[in-house]
Amino acid sequence: MKKIKKALISISNKKNLKLILKYLKKYNIKIISSGGTYKEIKKLGFNCIEVSKYTGSPKMINGRVKTLHPKIHAGILSVRNNKSHKKDLKKYNFDEIDLIIVNFYPFQKILSSKMNHKKIIENIDIGGPTLVRSAAKNYNDVVVISNTRQYKNFIDELNKNKGSTSLKFREKMSNEAFLETGFYDSIISEYFNKITNNQFPKKKLIFGNLIEKLRYGENPHQQGAIYSMKNDLKIIKLNGKELSFNNYNDIFSALSISKSLPKNVGTVIVKHASPCGVSVNKNKIDSFKLALKCDPISAFGGVVSCNFKIKKKLALELKKIFLEIIIGNGFDKDALKILKKRKNIRVIDASKITNKDKQNITTNFDSMLLQSTDFKTFSKNDFVVVSKIKPNKEIMNNLIFAFNVCRFVKSNAIVITKNFSTIGIGCGQPSRIDSCKIAIEKMNIFHNNLKKSNIYAASDAFFPFVDGIENLVQAGVSAVIQPSGSIRDKEIIKFANKLGIILVFSKTRHFKH
Amino acid sequence: MKKIKKALISISNKKNLKLILKYLKKYNIKIISSGGTYKEIKKLGFNCIEVSKYTGSPKMINGRVKTLHPKIHAGILSVRNNKSHKKDLKKYNFDEIDLIIVNFYPFQKILSSKMNHKKIIENIDIGGPTLVRSAAKNYNDVVVISNTRQYKNFIDELNKNKGSTSLKFREKMSNEAFLETGFYDSIISEYFNKITNNQFPKKKLIFGNLIEKLRYGENPHQQGAIYSMKNDLKIIKLNGKELSFNNYNDIFSALSISKSLPKNVGTVIVKHASPCGVSVNKNKIDSFKLALKCDPISAFGGVVSCNFKIKKKLALELKKIFLEIIIGNGFDKDALKILKKRKNIRVIDASKITNKDKQNITTNFDSMLLQSTDFKTFSKNDFVVVSKIKPNKEIMNNLIFAFNVCRFVKSNAIVITKNFSTIGIGCGQPSRIDSCKIAIEKMNIFHNNLKKSNIYAASDAFFPFVDGIENLVQAGVSAVIQPSGSIRDKEIIKFANKLGIILVFSKTRHFKH
Repeated sequence: MKKIKKALISISNKKNLKLILKYLKKYNIKIISSGGTYKEIKKLGFNCIEVSKYTGSPKMINGRVKTLHPKIHAGILSVRNNKSHKKDLKKYNFDEIDLIIVNFYPFQKILSSKMNHKKIIENIDIGGPTLVRSAAKNYNDVVVISNTRQYKNFIDELNKNKGSTSLKFREKMSNEAFLETGFYDSIISEYFNKITNNQFPKKKLIFGNLIEKLRYGENPHQQGAIYSMKNDLKIIKLNGKELSFNNYNDIFSALSISKSLPKNVGTVIVKHASPCGVSVNKNKIDSFKLALKCDPISAFGGVVSCNFKIKKKLALELKKIFLEIIIGNGFDKDALKILKKRKNIRVIDASKITNKDKQNITTNFDSMLLQSTDFKTFSKNDFVVVSKIKPNKEIMNNLIFAFNVCRFVKSNAIVITKNFSTIGIGCGQPSRIDSCKIAIEKMNIFHNNLKKSNIYAASDAFFPFVDGIENLVQAGVSAVIQPSGSIRDKEIIKFANKLGIILVFSKTRHFKH
Repeated sequence: MKKIKKALISISNKKNLKLILKYLKKYNIKIISSGGTYKEIKKLGFNCIEVSKYTGSPKMINGRVKTLHPKIHAGILSVRNNKSHKKDLKKYNFDEIDLIIVNFYPFQKILSSKMNHKKIIENIDIGGPTLVRSAAKNYNDVVVISNTRQYKNFIDELNKNKGSTSLKFREKMSNEAFLETGFYDSIISEYFNKITNNQFPKKKLIFGNLIEKLRYGENPHQQGAIYSMKNDLKIIKLNGKELSFNNYNDIFSALSISKSLPKNVGTVIVKHASPCGVSVNKNKIDSFKLALKCDPISAFGGVVSCNFKIKKKLALELKKIFLEIIIGNGFDKDALKILKKRKNIRVIDASKITNKDKQNITTNFDSMLLQSTDFKTFSKNDFVVVSKIKPNKEIMNNLIFAFNVCRFVKSNAIVITKNFSTIGIGCGQPSRIDSCKIAIEKMNIFHNNLKKSNIYAASDAFFPFVDGIENLVQAGVSAVIQPSGSIRDKEIIKFANKLGIILVFSKTRHFKH
């Protein structure tokens, strides 16, 4: 237990300051402060000595170095049970400082404001983090409160111990203090990386704010949590049970596809983080129905994501099948009323989410694999028609639709489409021919009475042999889009011409593992 | 351009200090220093003033607050073209300090040493990061060198500009400085999280050292890089071309399975980050051959990972097929000689890698999903035999082998095995019945003349209906292992008894998406 006699307060967020001061007074704790905090403390009617008066060092260069003074830092850093330290303090008439209350002006807020670069740099706090780090280092003797959310626990601790704190509490506060300072500098360095377009700096810092601990991870014996690199996730849950780890994973899978489709016309159905139906249609009911028709069995218990506002008529359709999650670009009142009748169904408004991720990160064996996100927007210039038969605009747009879906399907990926809707998806196979077979089988099961015309297929990477295309054409496919790059590209073009199909080569490959 | 007149040096790593001093002297730059750095500078025969002499503030509390002084920090932080700042410095006889050379004692090294907690905390640097942050903030006027690897560029810059530096250079150094301080505090907070078992702190900091920029990411239009959360990856490349993003991804997939198998007997073959053959056999040639036999077509161009030392005889076998990567728990001389004959084949020694990852992280839409890794080691207590027919030890061990492989296969996962080798793997399907069909088809293609006995199957999650089990049994499977949890569990037990097969329920599910 350590009794607190003297505190230094320097805070940006003045919320609940009065409450803290009340308890400091109760336990007879003297206060040092400066600037805005000093003024506020005086205004609230509490006693306080100004830093410059305390150190005897005059204010200079706009007060930038007020607390960077031996009298302050020796007061914080001195080891209380070290006789020589004690002697030093006595000799120079320095007091021990037992409590530091500091919070930083949130740098993320500064960055999202319209400040210019110079102003942003000016806002970097030097004195504050140094106080916090000094106190956190010497937590054996000193308490550091580095965030307003700690106030309640701090006051409880003070009350419990009548103005003292336990080592355990001080250690916890120290831990959190280094998170604050590390986080602060991570944000600053991220800002510099951004303005200098330094994608892969020598050291990489990734940081997040805890949004919630999850019931468990991907499986019940794993623990899980979700963080936001910003202040929140912008995933607005309007109805339903808490979101699980797998729910979040599915939501992100569904959204990445939804956000890639033409606005206000696309429906995606996801199961096990893989799409099992995607459709683009101006008629929103058809958009959903066609997506569902791709694989209604897999859709059972799945996630539906519409990149448009969900209205009453669609809500009535959605209600007919068992779904875990419904995502919409907003919901109208009637739709929401209908969907809310099912207490368990998770209803997510994704209208606030924009896909501005720059990088994906995965971790394994103490490594981090980083890559820029596969955000390419396709234009006709990305493709070359290599077959004798040329696609008309309608076919070309269908092929581009198929190819776009393909990149969200786990490799090897084969997507068969008709009329801007998937009708067969083959995924996650080590061999491309197997993905072809799976896609064809799916098509044959759920579209067995389909007119075998205007059926197109996309592959996420080149066909290494002609067999995949042969299978697809036998199943009714009349146009194929694929990246080039095989040593057999010429053979494949020849083969396509022999079969009389359209073949389009893309300039980009879209593996997704 | 800013001329450097005065520098403050405080370094832990004294490497190349002499070189730096030579150039500082050449450009007539005065030096302030203290402690070990001061002594070293004097020893090397250069002029230098001690910090305490410069500030006039006596040494106290073991020199913990030497540089935390207004004279130092006003000298760094003063805005050179601000008249009032200039006046202040003049008034108090403070000099401008234009260059800070600081490097921190690497905290990761401290943590991997055998220091006790108290010593570790004592090693937290307060003065150094404050100097670096002050200088980095005021990069408009000040250069900060925060890592020895910057020395060369700094000397080049000095020479190019005859003792001055450009704004661009100072900005770059400032960027890197905040990476250093953020990194430093991230490591400290990680240490605290670890000792207090704080898995999901309010703020999460993840940090890595750049190992290499990669030619590209998962696809050529994406940029990629790999970082280590430690100092290196411990992936030792003995032969072959540079590793690509997908190579790393495949290697991690292969290793996670290899490390889970009984030591010195396991072979794993991976393609597109998915296993296409796993075998455990005391005879190492058989171990490889049986893994290969599972799906030799997918294995083409794949990754082979043996959790034992690869010797000559196996190397000759490996040479027969086209592989991208061969991973061994070491290689003997003869084996390496044989494998090195193929210049392109990547040969990886993984003997230094231990799987101690605590958490997996994936990022999406500015979120981070964190979970503890699925590291469960299976014991017989994790399983309950629910069928009338009970497995003998051999069958039980085979089932546990199958179930272990299952958790590394993308969900939904079905793994069919015989004699501790996979013979059919179905993966990545939104519906479980489809994974069953794929696994069976694979088995029928590559093991069509197999004696249909002692064939077992594992599922990563429960069967929702009896149809999957029905398909497997029809294909020759006589024992099934699966997690429980379906509302139809009882029906499934009844069904298994009707078919006369062994059914084992596991207490844990193993989704992997």
